[in-house]
Amino acid sequence: MGLQIGNHQLDSRFLLGTAGYPSPAILAESIRASGAQVLTLGLKRTLGTGARDNGFVQIIRDAAKDQGAQLLPNTAGCRSAHEAVQLACMARELLDTAWIKLEVVGDEQLLAPDPFELLDAAAQLVRLGFTVLPYCTDDLVLGQRLLDAGCAGLMPWGAPIGSGQGLLNPFALRALRARFPAATLIVDAGIGAPSQAAQAMELGFDGVLLNSAVALCGDPVRMAAAFAQAIAAGRAAFEAGPIAAQDLAVPSTPVSGRPFTL
Amino acid sequence: MGLQIGNHQLDSRFLLGTAGYPSPAILAESIRASGAQVLTLGLKRTLGTGARDNGFVQIIRDAAKDQGAQLLPNTAGCRSAHEAVQLACMARELLDTAWIKLEVVGDEQLLAPDPFELLDAAAQLVRLGFTVLPYCTDDLVLGQRLLDAGCAGLMPWGAPIGSGQGLLNPFALRALRARFPAATLIVDAGIGAPSQAAQAMELGFDGVLLNSAVALCGDPVRMAAAFAQAIAAGRAAFEAGPIAAQDLAVPSTPVSGRPFTL
Amino acid sequence: MGLQIGNHQLDSRFLLGTAGYPSPAILAESIRASGAQVLTLGLKRTLGTGARDNGFVQIIRDAAKDQGAQLLPNTAGCRSAHEAVQLACMARELLDTAWIKLEVVGDEQLLAPDPFELLDAAAQLVRLGFTVLPYCTDDLVLGQRLLDAGCAGLMPWGAPIGSGQGLLNPFALRALRARFPAATLIVDAGIGAPSQAAQAMELGFDGVLLNSAVALCGDPVRMAAAFAQAIAAGRAAFEAGPIAAQDLAVPSTPVSGRPFTL
Amino acid sequence: MGLQIGNHQLDSRFLLGTAGYPSPAILAESIRASGAQVLTLGLKRTLGTGARDNGFVQIIRDAAKDQGAQLLPNTAGCRSAHEAVQLACMARELLDTAWIKLEVVGDEQLLAPDPFELLDAAAQLVRLGFTVLPYCTDDLVLGQRLLDAGCAGLMPWGAPIGSGQGLLNPFALRALRARFPAATLIVDAGIGAPSQAAQAMELGFDGVLLNSAVALCGDPVRMAAAFAQAIAAGRAAFEAGPIAAQDLAVPSTPVSGRPFTL
Repeated sequence: MGLQIGNHQLDSRFLLGTAGYPSPAILAESIRASGAQVLTLGLKRTLGTGARDNGFVQIIRDAAKDQGAQLLPNTAGCRSAHEAVQLACMARELLDTAWIKLEVVGDEQLLAPDPFELLDAAAQLVRLGFTVLPYCTDDLVLGQRLLDAGCAGLMPWGAPIGSGQGLLNPFALRALRARFPAATLIVDAGIGAPSQAAQAMELGFDGVLLNSAVALCGDPVRMAAAFAQAIAAGRAAFEAGPIAAQDLAVPSTPVSGRPFTL
Repeated sequence: MGLQIGNHQLDSRFLLGTAGYPSPAILAESIRASGAQVLTLGLKRTLGTGARDNGFVQIIRDAAKDQGAQLLPNTAGCRSAHEAVQLACMARELLDTAWIKLEVVGDEQLLAPDPFELLDAAAQLVRLGFTVLPYCTDDLVLGQRLLDAGCAGLMPWGAPIGSGQGLLNPFALRALRARFPAATLIVDAGIGAPSQAAQAMELGFDGVLLNSAVALCGDPVRMAAAFAQAIAAGRAAFEAGPIAAQDLAVPSTPVSGRPFTL
Repeated sequence: MGLQIGNHQLDSRFLLGTAGYPSPAILAESIRASGAQVLTLGLKRTLGTGARDNGFVQIIRDAAKDQGAQLLPNTAGCRSAHEAVQLACMARELLDTAWIKLEVVGDEQLLAPDPFELLDAAAQLVRLGFTVLPYCTDDLVLGQRLLDAGCAGLMPWGAPIGSGQGLLNPFALRALRARFPAATLIVDAGIGAPSQAAQAMELGFDGVLLNSAVALCGDPVRMAAAFAQAIAAGRAAFEAGPIAAQDLAVPSTPVSGRPFTL
Repeated sequence: MGLQIGNHQLDSRFLLGTAGYPSPAILAESIRASGAQVLTLGLKRTLGTGARDNGFVQIIRDAAKDQGAQLLPNTAGCRSAHEAVQLACMARELLDTAWIKLEVVGDEQLLAPDPFELLDAAAQLVRLGFTVLPYCTDDLVLGQRLLDAGCAGLMPWGAPIGSGQGLLNPFALRALRARFPAATLIVDAGIGAPSQAAQAMELGFDGVLLNSAVALCGDPVRMAAAFAQAIAAGRAAFEAGPIAAQDLAVPSTPVSGRPFTL
């Protein structure tokens, strides 16, 4: 079983952002190396630059087609529910998808989600027929409200966007997983290294969305492949049932006795 | 370039222990799923049970042959240099390899390496022509002495054997990597989950050795494959040059401007 | 300069809860040992048990008088703005104070604040003339809204109430301090040990509120004094300007040269 | 009961270093503010500068007398057992004390203890009648050897000297405490803030030795007092029996029922 978003079942649990790559060719190759089946793209920029986007959207569409990927437009740059809803509606027209990664930011320095505007926008967009994936904090109560409003899942941050700090509060993420066992939960933002993506998956999250850790590193194509492996590894470990951590040493090699546990 | 041990170049950076698996079949399958090219096995137990080892060594040899793996006998259970040197010599005879994972334990509860007996044994075994890989603490000075004595690398613990606690002191491991840039460094012991193995590789370690995290988990075969992926992912990330963590958010999606950084 | 709450300047930066002590005598002694000048008490329970409260409120009043402490009624147990506002109004009548620790919980298991009901209640209570100290998450945007609504400060949790886990997300707490340099910020909930209270103060927080760590420990009176010391120590350290952490060792004892830095 | 060193019982558990203060007056005031009853001083520097030490030793002696403090000369700067033993012998002559803080460093960048030279020097100095307090790593086996050799206690580092990183490996420190319940254990080096000193004491350590965190901060006198409070607080908390950390919230204020637990 793969990642469920709305009515879609996806094989890959890696959702990749498309901003900030060194070149169109590296973007296309990174997408392919990631195997991602969800590709986010910033509407504000795309719309703002109009036809002179260097074929940005077409690159993404081409790569998306090859691996059966969906576009997931985002509302990065929006500061109010009103602005986000408008942008989402334009995106649906232009990109021909009802999926939306809903970002409504309330703090400029940390790009922190605004829980109030976010919930308002989410409720409006659900009523308008969108499949809404909100970029949110790890707040349990906000999460409950967003799911009650009809969101297709939750995308809590691990750390501020682009900070590469990994999972700042694993306790809060574990609590979200425990409280919403049936919801689609994706860590979105703050991941800097594959080990952190694997950790999110080992906590039982359904997927990981990231952008800067691939786009801004030394070798995006290689890093995209590395994240794909780490995310798959973390999921497999979660399903395989890892050993519990303990305070004392446990000899892996007993000095006598039968060689197998059976 | 792969993992260098003595004069050997190995493609895989995953070293797998062979103790404690539920059954011979699961051991064999786990070895294959891991792709490991170094397989450790406990001499004391093997020698102790003599010919009635259920074909334990033969299972390992068969799997080893398929994927070009080397046996790495260990001296688990030894408490003195004298005992460890004797056991290593017997292992060389029986298993026809001069490689030895040198364990000399000085604390029963944490299975902590004894730096004094370890250094003594390492020096003796190097003189006897062994390729010595010592299971050691993260002590810089001990590390320097072991390398000066001619060890083929260092295998510091991340945490006590079988504890699954991961890397208890990443600072100390980073310091080892920084001080011994040319040495083969492998994290041995304490790893419980793939994310932790990836983290070790992202610190620049050359490989990861583990046993309990695979053998004792719910599904060893699947977990072996997960660790193989995570170790490869961590190495690739190290080589690809990850982004640096920072305190502030950095927008991955600028709201205006050119879509690529070039 | 001490802790500012509304128009009051308090010498002590320790705010103590009064629930769950082994006996009235130990409660009274703990209050004295703490030197706390703000004492919280649960309205729901006090009101519920009416006159048969074993003199609970009188004990607190007596101790409060001795050290110039204020009562800070709380709305623990409230699940909606409506309920919290009603309870706060009753508290003002009964206890003759317009101070209120505003708790509106949205998750039963973690006793997590409900950001929506909390903001609603805070705004109402400010309009009714209360000095409102909201128990909140470490959410920056919620914090801004609560301050905009006229709250006298913010009381973010360090961890879930009574969990004793300390500061789960120091990054988020540092961000609150940085964003609201002039606001009164108090860590409320989750503190289990004096070191954690000191850490909160070293981050620049203005005070620490706790209850279980004192009331439920082995020796509440001694622990109350310990927390008082640790909170004072953390504040002094913050004001004295601690050294910055660094990756390399720095000899404290240079082997030659003048004995003083001047 | 206070801190036991050799046959001495000391009231204070704070051991203070005397190097690097801005001025003689601030050194003297800081000593007084700390209440420390053990004052370390670097022999190499003192001997090297001879009579032209600005009255350095006399300042320490004067302050020491006021609060019943002992001098604890250290062998900072020594790289071999031979060198350390020689220096210790000179110190005993000059400073008229058989106490020695034994430092033998094997790595220049981290000022890491050299376990081999350290053990050698410790054994020699014990035979020569010294009360030996070795600055060591958190290695259990080394700790056992040092105690077996007759050391008066162990002084493991929390982090590299002067780094201010706090306790890098609390697990290892807890293990030392658990294994050597009767030994005098003092965290020496790496402490940057009072919260970290309190944490060491909460782990059950008998004392904390530090220097840079006081000498190099913005206000040494105030910081010395802050550390004194934090160390006392951490000890009191250890003795008072703190609450155990737990994963779920536990209401401190039950909404009904009797106000006291009895």
